[in-house]
Amino acid sequence: MCPDADGRIQGDGKVSEKIAVVLLSGGLDSATVLAMARAEGYRCQALSVSYGQRHVAELEAAARVAQRLGAESHRVIHVDLDRIGGSALTDPAIQVPEAPSRGIPVTYVPARNTLFLALALGLAEVAGARDLFVGVNVVDYSGYPDCRPEFIHAFEQLARVATKAGVEGARFHIHTPQISLSKAEIIQRGLDYAQTVSCYQADRDGRACGRCDSCRLRRAGFEAAGVPDPTRYAA
Amino acid sequence: MCPDADGRIQGDGKVSEKIAVVLLSGGLDSATVLAMARAEGYRCQALSVSYGQRHVAELEAAARVAQRLGAESHRVIHVDLDRIGGSALTDPAIQVPEAPSRGIPVTYVPARNTLFLALALGLAEVAGARDLFVGVNVVDYSGYPDCRPEFIHAFEQLARVATKAGVEGARFHIHTPQISLSKAEIIQRGLDYAQTVSCYQADRDGRACGRCDSCRLRRAGFEAAGVPDPTRYAA
Repeated sequence: MCPDADGRIQGDGKVSEKIAVVLLSGGLDSATVLAMARAEGYRCQALSVSYGQRHVAELEAAARVAQRLGAESHRVIHVDLDRIGGSALTDPAIQVPEAPSRGIPVTYVPARNTLFLALALGLAEVAGARDLFVGVNVVDYSGYPDCRPEFIHAFEQLARVATKAGVEGARFHIHTPQISLSKAEIIQRGLDYAQTVSCYQADRDGRACGRCDSCRLRRAGFEAAGVPDPTRYAA
Repeated sequence: MCPDADGRIQGDGKVSEKIAVVLLSGGLDSATVLAMARAEGYRCQALSVSYGQRHVAELEAAARVAQRLGAESHRVIHVDLDRIGGSALTDPAIQVPEAPSRGIPVTYVPARNTLFLALALGLAEVAGARDLFVGVNVVDYSGYPDCRPEFIHAFEQLARVATKAGVEGARFHIHTPQISLSKAEIIQRGLDYAQTVSCYQADRDGRACGRCDSCRLRRAGFEAAGVPDPTRYAA
């Protein structure tokens, strides 16, 4: 069993260094992460989670992005987090804020990235992947606890003891290539962002509101990057 | 804000020492855990996960058990893990073994308890609970990596950095009151086990096959406990 020219391990098909599971929301950050993983030569299994969020347009964007960037597969897993609520993204009674908020914003979804990484870890184990990619970055982790390096590190530790593969000696690596990039730096990576939807309350055609936190950060990113904003806005 | 006679903290309603989230599969172990949590004075929010498993009869059993044991609420969250597969419990193409297996059995569901605890953690944060109960025990953790004490400990560490509550100083405690009990000792706790379903391939009426790993462990438990087995078998 030897690595081929691309560094893939052929043979029993159980483990390849170059298979990755990429969490793909359909937003700007995760689309860039998928492009980065592809550029590093990973065969990518894209995974989106439909969790009762308001912005379902993101999922349609995710499917387009996965295909365009050459993901080998794209799965959408449904989890009805509206049964738990507690976030403006999962409870219709909590309004998406349209002005910057202090502290952790109401768009925080309790334990969301723990859940997303749990699903990605399960898929990685089945797919024989040891590399997971997730598009967390500084802009988010100034607000969301589960976008911080200490969270990512704790999850890597958990993965070692949580899985059959871990017990058998595997080490899962969670790649966060954007963790120290600004929104502008992400945008400068030069992807076709017209395909992506970041808005927390996009309409059914994927048009952004232009007012929520996510829209503001994205628009400011294009401005700072000196790149024309290709986002389709509702009004 | 003072504890009342039952040790509950009244006041802003955000945090009570005596609210717990209990993972409830509807099987023998988790039913006993709910009874134990109730006996310790916890107000219990029961949480079941429908994850494409074959034994949906368990979920109906969970609803009966939750009501009978006085859980304050019972939620069923759907997660379509059959999109990932990789286990006899989530992939119809993999047969449930009817003889004891060596090593980690094919009924292992990749990252299942990571996923279950992620959902329980999210609910705990929304409900103001800091205590989670889960029915793992030695019989399981001889086979399943995510039933071991080191997994539980790693998840507690993760919960501290994964959540808004953790960032604000909360410490989540995962109770595993059965972790060192044998199946017989669990049964001797004396619950009405006729309500529960453990079989991996129970029929629609909740009748057990009597042959899978889960049925064998349960039957052996009743024998070792010297208690008549109230399980309803299909044949």
